[in-house]
Amino acid sequence: MPRGEAYEPTTRTTPTRARDRAAYDHETVHAILDAGYVCHLGFVRDGSPVVLPTLYGRVGDRLYLHGSSGSRPLRMAGEATGEAPDPGLEVCVTVTHVDGLVLARSAFHHSVNYRCVVVHGTAHQVTDPEEKKAALDALVDHVVPGRAADSRPGNAKELAATAVLRLDLREVSAKIRSGGPNDEPEDLALPYWSGVLPVAPVYGAPIPSDDLAPGTPEPAYLSAR
Amino acid sequence: MPRGEAYEPTTRTTPTRARDRAAYDHETVHAILDAGYVCHLGFVRDGSPVVLPTLYGRVGDRLYLHGSSGSRPLRMAGEATGEAPDPGLEVCVTVTHVDGLVLARSAFHHSVNYRCVVVHGTAHQVTDPEEKKAALDALVDHVVPGRAADSRPGNAKELAATAVLRLDLREVSAKIRSGGPNDEPEDLALPYWSGVLPVAPVYGAPIPSDDLAPGTPEPAYLSAR
Repeated sequence: MPRGEAYEPTTRTTPTRARDRAAYDHETVHAILDAGYVCHLGFVRDGSPVVLPTLYGRVGDRLYLHGSSGSRPLRMAGEATGEAPDPGLEVCVTVTHVDGLVLARSAFHHSVNYRCVVVHGTAHQVTDPEEKKAALDALVDHVVPGRAADSRPGNAKELAATAVLRLDLREVSAKIRSGGPNDEPEDLALPYWSGVLPVAPVYGAPIPSDDLAPGTPEPAYLSAR
Repeated sequence: MPRGEAYEPTTRTTPTRARDRAAYDHETVHAILDAGYVCHLGFVRDGSPVVLPTLYGRVGDRLYLHGSSGSRPLRMAGEATGEAPDPGLEVCVTVTHVDGLVLARSAFHHSVNYRCVVVHGTAHQVTDPEEKKAALDALVDHVVPGRAADSRPGNAKELAATAVLRLDLREVSAKIRSGGPNDEPEDLALPYWSGVLPVAPVYGAPIPSDDLAPGTPEPAYLSAR
């Protein structure tokens, strides 16, 4: 159910089926994006699709994607810098969380509970130093909230070696499947177990580096993760 | 380190950086594929990239991807069926597992431990009924090993409503990052905690359907998941 502001659906953000699973409101979309830190970045190279796992962060209505200055999508997005304005790189960025395995009595109705967001748009290299710093802080804080302020900030050489892509959130949709299996009425009497097996990422005990100075306290934001 | 048979590296499966993280041997690639069940399927539509989360299964050197007969990539892969041979759909399929968050003393050296496989190729609709059935069994068993034999098999109507894409594993690479942070020597004395926060998907207690017949036993393969 849409709440508050929402992204405008377009042809490619309107699913051809299971339309009741689609959502466009900012609250739902941002919550799914903020719950993750690895997206799958799709782009076209020499006419062929490429999909790479990539770290991201969100600041308001912008996604920031991170890579080495030498990596292919980052180079492609920046290829026309110089006198000509940066043409950007057309991308599709998808973030998916799996919440449960849905076991129906029939093989056909097996499914997965998930929350996902798909973003279409043109990504541009971030060249403004202040925006780049803020984006990198957002990236680190997406992985471990609170960590950006508790580490050494990047120096000039490191910032130059890091490329950041900005992707405005405009053509965006969320898709959510939740709840139990949708078994056929005539299958209810079959002798198979039916239900949901919940799944979620769980963090283990932090493993300190071998060279960590003895007595260095474990930060509170790690225990909270 | 390659062991046994390996996939032949190509230009697009050879990383431009961090080449020591790449692997091509079947054992490594298949283990990463078999540890998951949701891939990110990339394809090109009207010249633009599209990335969708999709269920998959592996049978030998073939990946099978699953979708509704009405879904866009499945329709696109089958558009030229009839007299002309199926031209297929050029895809990139990526499977990613996140194993840990890598916290370095410097923001720049923050990273994520992961295992991922990227497959490039042309996917074709599976039309042979026996192959389709075997593929759907593999898909269900990827999600919950042992489940395909313990559910009602698809009937003719369900099989017609389900489309399956086959993608041969030929142009394939794995990429793995593991271990602790790579801090700069001059950063080792900084007062920041450094190390790895492990993360893994953890399955909760199975939630039976409301309409499950009382006394239906919980299958052993669920407790093992």
